[in-house]
Amino acid sequence: MPDAAGPTTPGSEGAPPREDSRLPLSGLRVVELGHYIAAPFATRLLADLGAEVIKVEPPEGDPHRDWGARVNGRAVWFSIHGRNKLSVTVDLKSEEGRRKVRALCARADALVENFRPGYLERIGLGPEVLRAENPRLVIARVSGYGQDGPYRDKPAFGAIGEAMGGLRHLTANPGQADLPPPRCGVSISDDLAGMYAALSLVSACWGRDRKADGQGGGKGVTIDLDLVSSVFSLMEGMLPEYGMLGRIRQPMGAALPSAAPTNTYPCADGKWLAIAGNSDLIFRRLMERIGRPDLAADPRMASNSGRCAHAGELDEAIAAWTRTMTAKEAQEAMEAVQVPCSRLYDMKDCAEDPHFQARDMMLEVEDPLVGATVPHPAAPFRFEGVPPRDMVRWPGPAVGQHNDYVFDTLLKEDAR
Amino acid sequence: MPDAAGPTTPGSEGAPPREDSRLPLSGLRVVELGHYIAAPFATRLLADLGAEVIKVEPPEGDPHRDWGARVNGRAVWFSIHGRNKLSVTVDLKSEEGRRKVRALCARADALVENFRPGYLERIGLGPEVLRAENPRLVIARVSGYGQDGPYRDKPAFGAIGEAMGGLRHLTANPGQADLPPPRCGVSISDDLAGMYAALSLVSACWGRDRKADGQGGGKGVTIDLDLVSSVFSLMEGMLPEYGMLGRIRQPMGAALPSAAPTNTYPCADGKWLAIAGNSDLIFRRLMERIGRPDLAADPRMASNSGRCAHAGELDEAIAAWTRTMTAKEAQEAMEAVQVPCSRLYDMKDCAEDPHFQARDMMLEVEDPLVGATVPHPAAPFRFEGVPPRDMVRWPGPAVGQHNDYVFDTLLKEDAR
Repeated sequence: MPDAAGPTTPGSEGAPPREDSRLPLSGLRVVELGHYIAAPFATRLLADLGAEVIKVEPPEGDPHRDWGARVNGRAVWFSIHGRNKLSVTVDLKSEEGRRKVRALCARADALVENFRPGYLERIGLGPEVLRAENPRLVIARVSGYGQDGPYRDKPAFGAIGEAMGGLRHLTANPGQADLPPPRCGVSISDDLAGMYAALSLVSACWGRDRKADGQGGGKGVTIDLDLVSSVFSLMEGMLPEYGMLGRIRQPMGAALPSAAPTNTYPCADGKWLAIAGNSDLIFRRLMERIGRPDLAADPRMASNSGRCAHAGELDEAIAAWTRTMTAKEAQEAMEAVQVPCSRLYDMKDCAEDPHFQARDMMLEVEDPLVGATVPHPAAPFRFEGVPPRDMVRWPGPAVGQHNDYVFDTLLKEDAR
Repeated sequence: MPDAAGPTTPGSEGAPPREDSRLPLSGLRVVELGHYIAAPFATRLLADLGAEVIKVEPPEGDPHRDWGARVNGRAVWFSIHGRNKLSVTVDLKSEEGRRKVRALCARADALVENFRPGYLERIGLGPEVLRAENPRLVIARVSGYGQDGPYRDKPAFGAIGEAMGGLRHLTANPGQADLPPPRCGVSISDDLAGMYAALSLVSACWGRDRKADGQGGGKGVTIDLDLVSSVFSLMEGMLPEYGMLGRIRQPMGAALPSAAPTNTYPCADGKWLAIAGNSDLIFRRLMERIGRPDLAADPRMASNSGRCAHAGELDEAIAAWTRTMTAKEAQEAMEAVQVPCSRLYDMKDCAEDPHFQARDMMLEVEDPLVGATVPHPAAPFRFEGVPPRDMVRWPGPAVGQHNDYVFDTLLKEDAR
């Protein structure tokens, strides 16, 4: 695999991690006391950006390592979720284990954790303890409901953030009261909280390090992130629309109530095509192309408000045409007359798409743990002069793969 | 309104903006050449974090100002979307306007823009031009498909990232081939790209400013962000699962393919309850509570992967129990044994929830432009010692409200 990211997984032969000074967070050390998704996703983004992330796992490993389909006995998602990180094992139930975590945090820029609120304090690793040894330590705490409030001690998983934050209410199918509203399909509330954790953590480091240059300060801060607020932050203008006008946003399915025709239409191969024909000019081109010049010329359909009043009739006409061909054929026909549209890509569509390929959005990464070359999505941010494949320095490591390197080499070098 | 954020909108009487050194990005200046959602959402997050954001608008204003429901003739979403920003107007078609943008960028840390790729270069404001005057300038560019690749010049519309990035495929209802997969209900791909823009921008500033302390470097970089990659980055293990095993992730409705049991279950009163019982310990508590200790002890169900293989059987057992009581009764029973669960909140549920209220997740902000007190969602990140209401310094300003302050005061002060 000449294109694969190199086999330079650090620590496998005691080698130091490959630092890359082209990456913006090169030189930032972050300790992860994380499991499952939210905190590990935050640190994966930081690691993609060049940070040195030390993932602290229990001796049996993060249970997330068991999630998803396996190849050679290994869940392949972890190849991505754990990439660019160092893994060390620590038994938090032992004094020796807690001493190791304190030693790591004493030499780190930041800590990301997603235990239940209060747990770190109970085992003697709360912010006050850690910051007594390292006043610079930024601590980002991710939880379901936040570090205070009446629900703080309730257990929460991602589905709960999506439900309480307002998103699941919006994905219902109008008029289908017997169908459970579908999820987003991914762990969206964990992902959002992880992204906010990464953003606020780096921001806190920027502010701390700026103040350290002669303005006093330079202290680390504690940041409280929760799944519910992370989802709720995306609710656009819905809070004032309810609070000031009493309007409760309702699910809209695949349509928009204020513009027509724009919807998602069924094709002959069972796939769907989203078509946005909702401007006067585009509408006429769309109707001509599907063989309905009568509707293009219909005075009832001359304006958007008229089209909205007859949206069902227009959607039926468009669907009658899309049903006669594959989604790909329909998309090509629409694009030829400059009508905005998009198929709903599944993973095969993504993998075969020439734009995804041209942009190196899918990387082949040699993974010694899986014993195979694993396709990885590229980092979502591209830095000029840094090829996307260079941002995947190594795949998710084995449990405790870097114990010797981190505890015997890294910490001792720092202590010198 | 003694609790409302103060009326200290900067510039209304020529006053300087209220800086808050408790916020981590206080002292970071960011220029926004943005419209609609993605770039303005990035800068809203940066502004919430304390950055000085200068939003550059055409004389008629960002068209987003018209989006959504109105109060007193003003769309209330913009009160949130534009908060904590300074607004200046510039005509990019005039040489005078472009000179102003160059002057702003010459004195800024970073620029966020979401024009079509190539537009800034065509009007003489490309990265090379801007960085010739300010080598430190970090530039985050947000577009539908990215700055290169075969689709770069195709027009992006709202649903593209969601559809091409793989998310819309996953929101279908299994077994309901005649129902179009619903939208997420919010502008999720713009939001994700905006969050990644904010994260990578601050990271680039941290790396630049670290290098400036005597390590050489200190140059600004250009970052390429696109809606499609931003959504695609959340596709978990789906790419290797397809590439290595040929498996194409299919919609799961309210279930998850990688964790079980977690689903949305029907109750006797016709309402839905999301229950997440997908960890070993929680699973056993859940099964005991619904009277199925046999499943709790079943060796097939001992691990998450085993439970995923028998998810249908578990969902049937849970639904058989939830159908015998109201959603409220089921929720109370689940909470009594510490099993995560939630109803699907609409905006009224959010507004009335005691936890949202106790956490100050909804703030009353006096908005002179709307002429009313507008409820705002708090910033999703909380910094110890900074009350959430202090992070909303002022609501979305009028078009060009800060022209005099920015062009006559701010830039001249800096030039001294």
